[in-house]
Amino acid sequence: MKNKEEVLGDLREDIDRVDKQLVDLLVKRKQLVAEVGQVKNKHGLPVYLPEREAALLQARRSEAEKRGLSPDLMEDLLRRIMRESYHAEEKVGFKSTHPKAGPIVVIGGAGGMGRLFVRMFNLSGYETRVLEKDDWSQAEHLLAGASLVLVSVPIHLTPEVVLRLKGLIVADVVLADVTSTKTEPLAAMLQVHEGPVIGLHPMFGPSKAGFAKQVVVYCEGRYQDRCAWLLDQIQLWGANLLSSNPTEHDHMMSIIQALRHFETFVYGCHLHAENVDLETVLHFSSPIYRLELGMVGRLFAQDPDLYADIIFSSKEGLALASRYHQRFGEAVALLQQGDVERFSQQFLEVQAWFGDLGPRFLKESSFMLEKVTEKYGERGKREKTAT
Amino acid sequence: MKNKEEVLGDLREDIDRVDKQLVDLLVKRKQLVAEVGQVKNKHGLPVYLPEREAALLQARRSEAEKRGLSPDLMEDLLRRIMRESYHAEEKVGFKSTHPKAGPIVVIGGAGGMGRLFVRMFNLSGYETRVLEKDDWSQAEHLLAGASLVLVSVPIHLTPEVVLRLKGLIVADVVLADVTSTKTEPLAAMLQVHEGPVIGLHPMFGPSKAGFAKQVVVYCEGRYQDRCAWLLDQIQLWGANLLSSNPTEHDHMMSIIQALRHFETFVYGCHLHAENVDLETVLHFSSPIYRLELGMVGRLFAQDPDLYADIIFSSKEGLALASRYHQRFGEAVALLQQGDVERFSQQFLEVQAWFGDLGPRFLKESSFMLEKVTEKYGERGKREKTAT
Repeated sequence: MKNKEEVLGDLREDIDRVDKQLVDLLVKRKQLVAEVGQVKNKHGLPVYLPEREAALLQARRSEAEKRGLSPDLMEDLLRRIMRESYHAEEKVGFKSTHPKAGPIVVIGGAGGMGRLFVRMFNLSGYETRVLEKDDWSQAEHLLAGASLVLVSVPIHLTPEVVLRLKGLIVADVVLADVTSTKTEPLAAMLQVHEGPVIGLHPMFGPSKAGFAKQVVVYCEGRYQDRCAWLLDQIQLWGANLLSSNPTEHDHMMSIIQALRHFETFVYGCHLHAENVDLETVLHFSSPIYRLELGMVGRLFAQDPDLYADIIFSSKEGLALASRYHQRFGEAVALLQQGDVERFSQQFLEVQAWFGDLGPRFLKESSFMLEKVTEKYGERGKREKTAT
Repeated sequence: MKNKEEVLGDLREDIDRVDKQLVDLLVKRKQLVAEVGQVKNKHGLPVYLPEREAALLQARRSEAEKRGLSPDLMEDLLRRIMRESYHAEEKVGFKSTHPKAGPIVVIGGAGGMGRLFVRMFNLSGYETRVLEKDDWSQAEHLLAGASLVLVSVPIHLTPEVVLRLKGLIVADVVLADVTSTKTEPLAAMLQVHEGPVIGLHPMFGPSKAGFAKQVVVYCEGRYQDRCAWLLDQIQLWGANLLSSNPTEHDHMMSIIQALRHFETFVYGCHLHAENVDLETVLHFSSPIYRLELGMVGRLFAQDPDLYADIIFSSKEGLALASRYHQRFGEAVALLQQGDVERFSQQFLEVQAWFGDLGPRFLKESSFMLEKVTEKYGERGKREKTAT
């Protein structure tokens, strides 16, 4: 009869063996997916089919369930594995949607978002050129023969940079920008250029993950049909395209970007002013608070100019922030009066207004909180922070 | 020579085969982990060893890297697989750290957190009894022979519920609570009971995931050595224990819970007052905003009483909210004046104050944002929301 250490030792060896087989399978799957990508690319087939991915996930869920395995586990693992394969796609490169295109000139191509576009266009077989702030003396040369001029500079500089293009680009060039506001840049582009114009706004920060599953908003400017290849190209990179108009877009961004970043800024200033001990707070944190602290720390780990640009460039941002400030004051008064009843009444009104989205957000956020715990929680630790 | 459809068909069949083998491996791994759990449980060994988990993850990362696979991919997959095994542990049950204990009485045992404790104690072989608000006529009977009385009722009711125990519990019973504040409940328990007293605060909502990797704060009351089995039990369930004192705890909670929930409440009210179209916002959302919207919707999908209780019970909450309101007003003034310079200066001060935690939070939040995109993003979609 084996003793408990031997039994455990055997079991652990078995687990090690299973994990090695897991690595083998992942390597094999990666190779197969890469082969699929190559075949598709060679024949100009779309690399990604949303319906096929959804059908595959559903099939795998059912199989897992039949075998007594959690379908959610299976789906989570496959989504993670699939994400990895987007990087593999990049190595193969992307099909060009405009093989006869001339060079693509990215103004501000040395910045974060500019570099990402340069990389993606290169991966898709285009010739790219970067026009940075010190290159304007050679602008004519750099812009010669271009099929697309893409402006990727800070918001407050976009109109003046666009105006510098006056007389430098010919009528058949597509002029586009990637600014976080759309009204002014689009107006400037339409003013300076008589050819095709389109405004873009990638709703994500430049990272190694690229465009896959990210939203890119676009606003039509002029001659939409002649910009189609550009949108097709971005879609081929895996992005979701969302059509909007400059007014709607800028209104949405005042909420999604300007006010939200402003609030996060104030919250960080508040923690600083209260001189909160961040390490201690982290020890006490629930998963929700850890996530929120992560978002605050994230903002302050980046460039102030980036956020100043977004916050101060929003036309509606100030009015929105003022109204938020007033509502905050009203809620503080309610707290001061100890008016639990009014609080609950207001709570229920907002709950009703959220409608079906409330339970949906509860489910989504639960998934995220489980991820926080899975990734950053330890188990069975004992600590003392009290001083 | 095969045509492209045949080649693709063959490759897809290969991928299907790999995925089936993946299911096989996961089923096998699950069985092995369950066996390890049984052997450990039988011999009273700790089910979970943080060092072994960390070593295993590190070893698997290296193996993945050697095979040209992303180490992060391997770690993410294994963490997700391990999370699943916590549920498997529950089926086996937990070792009892106090096998001779009498019944455990949970006051408010029908509520969310109360039910979770009842379930965990049952899984660990204890007899449990629930004392709900209509059961006080039988309190003497229910409390007879108890080894632990655990108070799990709303914050504002805790002191009065504790005071009702006067004369009903004998000196050797452990008296504990799970309230989100600690000063008043602990004072009430020490006043009403001359035996061992301990205050607990589980920093998470009751969910199917249980205690694994979650934080439970505890504040010593009296006769700590006689409460040790209870802490050991909670640790065995996989929780991280954090020792604190009531003053520190309540101060931390005014920031982590009261102010944060209050802010989320105001933000939801603000969205409602602005009559923002939530579905449209969701279409435009970056991963960050989707996460934040999820947190707001989460609050409003729950019970107003729960949040009113936390927000209105915090002694420091009001002053903290008032100071936040004032600082928000100052920042609005800065925005009004268009003072980008002062904004950037303040930003850099907070950045310096965050120190090393900033880049760490940036990394943590990037992980979370990738998860949001992986789970909720689609690829290559085209939509129009503009009206």
